[in-house]
Amino acid sequence: MNHFAANLRCLFNPESVAVIGASDKPDKLGFHVMKSLTEGGFGGIIVPVNPGTSEIMGIKVSASISDYNGRIDLAIVVLPAKLVSGVFRECVAKGVKGIVLITAGFKEIDDPAGADLHEGIARIVNEAGIPVIGPNTFGMINFHANLNASFTPEFSRIKKGGICFVSQSGGISHLLGFMAMRMDVGFSKIVGLGNRLNVDFPQMLDYLMVDPDTKVIVLYLEGVDDPRDLIETAKKYPAKKPVIAYKTGSSMVGDQASLSHTGSMAGRHEVYTGAFSQAGILNIDNSETLLDTAKAMALCPMPEGPGMAVLSGQAGPGMAACDLCEDHGLEIARFTGSTQQEINDLLPPLALRTNPVDMGPAWYNSSAIKGIVKAVMNDTNVDGIILLMMFASANVDAVRGISDLLKEWAQKKPLITCILSPPGIWDEQIKALEESGSLANYPTPERAAKAMVNLWKYRKMKTG
Amino acid sequence: MNHFAANLRCLFNPESVAVIGASDKPDKLGFHVMKSLTEGGFGGIIVPVNPGTSEIMGIKVSASISDYNGRIDLAIVVLPAKLVSGVFRECVAKGVKGIVLITAGFKEIDDPAGADLHEGIARIVNEAGIPVIGPNTFGMINFHANLNASFTPEFSRIKKGGICFVSQSGGISHLLGFMAMRMDVGFSKIVGLGNRLNVDFPQMLDYLMVDPDTKVIVLYLEGVDDPRDLIETAKKYPAKKPVIAYKTGSSMVGDQASLSHTGSMAGRHEVYTGAFSQAGILNIDNSETLLDTAKAMALCPMPEGPGMAVLSGQAGPGMAACDLCEDHGLEIARFTGSTQQEINDLLPPLALRTNPVDMGPAWYNSSAIKGIVKAVMNDTNVDGIILLMMFASANVDAVRGISDLLKEWAQKKPLITCILSPPGIWDEQIKALEESGSLANYPTPERAAKAMVNLWKYRKMKTG
Repeated sequence: MNHFAANLRCLFNPESVAVIGASDKPDKLGFHVMKSLTEGGFGGIIVPVNPGTSEIMGIKVSASISDYNGRIDLAIVVLPAKLVSGVFRECVAKGVKGIVLITAGFKEIDDPAGADLHEGIARIVNEAGIPVIGPNTFGMINFHANLNASFTPEFSRIKKGGICFVSQSGGISHLLGFMAMRMDVGFSKIVGLGNRLNVDFPQMLDYLMVDPDTKVIVLYLEGVDDPRDLIETAKKYPAKKPVIAYKTGSSMVGDQASLSHTGSMAGRHEVYTGAFSQAGILNIDNSETLLDTAKAMALCPMPEGPGMAVLSGQAGPGMAACDLCEDHGLEIARFTGSTQQEINDLLPPLALRTNPVDMGPAWYNSSAIKGIVKAVMNDTNVDGIILLMMFASANVDAVRGISDLLKEWAQKKPLITCILSPPGIWDEQIKALEESGSLANYPTPERAAKAMVNLWKYRKMKTG
Repeated sequence: MNHFAANLRCLFNPESVAVIGASDKPDKLGFHVMKSLTEGGFGGIIVPVNPGTSEIMGIKVSASISDYNGRIDLAIVVLPAKLVSGVFRECVAKGVKGIVLITAGFKEIDDPAGADLHEGIARIVNEAGIPVIGPNTFGMINFHANLNASFTPEFSRIKKGGICFVSQSGGISHLLGFMAMRMDVGFSKIVGLGNRLNVDFPQMLDYLMVDPDTKVIVLYLEGVDDPRDLIETAKKYPAKKPVIAYKTGSSMVGDQASLSHTGSMAGRHEVYTGAFSQAGILNIDNSETLLDTAKAMALCPMPEGPGMAVLSGQAGPGMAACDLCEDHGLEIARFTGSTQQEINDLLPPLALRTNPVDMGPAWYNSSAIKGIVKAVMNDTNVDGIILLMMFASANVDAVRGISDLLKEWAQKKPLITCILSPPGIWDEQIKALEESGSLANYPTPERAAKAMVNLWKYRKMKTG
């Protein structure tokens, strides 16, 4: 591992963090960064830096990082742009390993002065081999290190998991983070790349491919930069970890002079997405599906083929899932004779016992439901199972009866569920199943089916 | 209004309800129906009917409806199928106005005996002009009458509103109901048609077009019935109330002999959706978009044209919304000179001030945000506004500053928002805005944009 890469690892796993521009005033970002670090439970040393105050949130403040009598691994910088180059020189002198530069007002402001500042600070850190997340970022969070190095303390509420989100947009990062809290999806890291001084998508890919906490890599991109480096980097890891990407910027928004220079945005957008597919990156076209797909990839094995079993407590949701599967390249499997026989033995003769299976007649018989799922799981024609159950207080017992087995089942083949109840009815049990890390549960049958579609698309792209 | 239609209105607005098959045992549906009625706050008379017990949930039980000494408007029947024809004769004799028949085991069981029972009971009620919701249904709920005539007590938690959902599937009804609780969407009625003894989609359309509580009519359909009656009925009301429909059953599910007889399901599916469009019914292809679209239609005026203003607190969500708009027939409007001048005066020179507008630089200045929205609302090139704001504790003040004006704005042109925060941060304020009935708020920028797309699609379909 080279010097820069070693420093990048240290940036995400520091033992000591300085907040340069820390503040005790709630209208300053330096206040919110301090809040994120302290409330996020970071176990290392926190060093607020501010020449004008002596204590912030009960922690002794240093006037500058040079004044601090100890090592600083990570510096989070929240100062006005014009002060940054001076601070960067101090960071180099102090032996800082990595920097998160939250400050805006560099290349992105479309003013030559901003671009000059950008080049100036880049020279300082590049010579020293110090990686910088930013400028113009909300920051980053390494959940497994309890390190919330962002100005959004609420990010700390997201649970630990295997998804790393690397994003060019703070807005989309917050969107996905808030969705993750509501859907109880676990992340390893969320990284706001901002204007990418020297840490861009390729550097992040190289790091994340060897990061033991990250199972699935999720990218959000926009703009018209040359994607060649990213594509070439992704190609180095053909089968290591799934990479999925959401790229916006297909719209013409013809009004904007800055875009008219680059020719057809839509055309360029297709070049991007085509290149992503060739590099083994799965293209996703909206934020909800991005999180849904990442969740399935983090929790489920990939399907070995397109054959799906759709097991539903009610006909309608089953049909909705079947429609979506067939529209997107999955197939509704034909069961083997022995599977069909087992199902016929478990369901009354007049029920719909072929695929999609109407589990309704077995509502009050969880051992029949168990038997059906087991038979289907062992069927060689079935590559994945979509299990759908809408229930309320009248039939909570049936769902309770099968919950213990859901974990076991999910290990063999992808099992994606839409187990849904009114708020307050069995919420805790569903949450417990989700938290056990073995249930990929979704709020609608179509979203469950779409997540399975994307597992199969990814698998197919990888195997040709 | 004819006798049947008058009875149908009484079915949904009864003064007295009998539950034939009421029970005090939680494993019986008759228990859950009693729970729904009593906990749902129904203000009329509830008459449990059961020959084997004297009191259920503190209410005196009648051995039969004939035994009950008073008028019965609505009878909810939860008895085994073989007992239904006898009960129906009693209902006719008693002068019952309408019946909800929850019992299953008629035509749907694919056994000639079931079909015979179905025909037999149909004759009894058709002669008497008594409308029947069902058989094989969870029931129905008339929220404005506090009447939960279903076996799912939790439906009573859905708030009152202008959307009526008429569904062929109990599963999809529960799905939409649970989603509505979580998204705080208001309904007028949810009606599970079941096997449609004599109340089918056309009868419901005729009724709902004159139902003062219903603003938007939402249909869920499946199966291969002849849609001609529905189409002809919809055509009678070309501009009265919006009707949107989700139809499943496009999948081949080749395994099923019953479907192979009808030829290409996919082909028939296209015939349906094409006919719906001609009849002015907007086709929707998944349950989430169905509820999202209904919500927008219930809360917003229709856009007069395709020109959209996208105002976003962050660039990424704005781009995501623009992409989706342009992909689906909306346009990102070019502001008039005076609008552009006003925005230029309110935002710093280096911000992105053309459409989509980057409101980021105005984050801490809610009067600037107000000024921008007002200017855009008055712009003749703008037919609708999509307002996107992801915020956490660091910038809660900016959103607080504009919340009072959101109601006022939403009256002039459609204003669809994605105002999103972490759970616990400003939830109550967003909920209050949503509950004021004037904010169509969505959990992602793309879902907000898609709702606007569907308002425009509907408007365009209606005006040619």
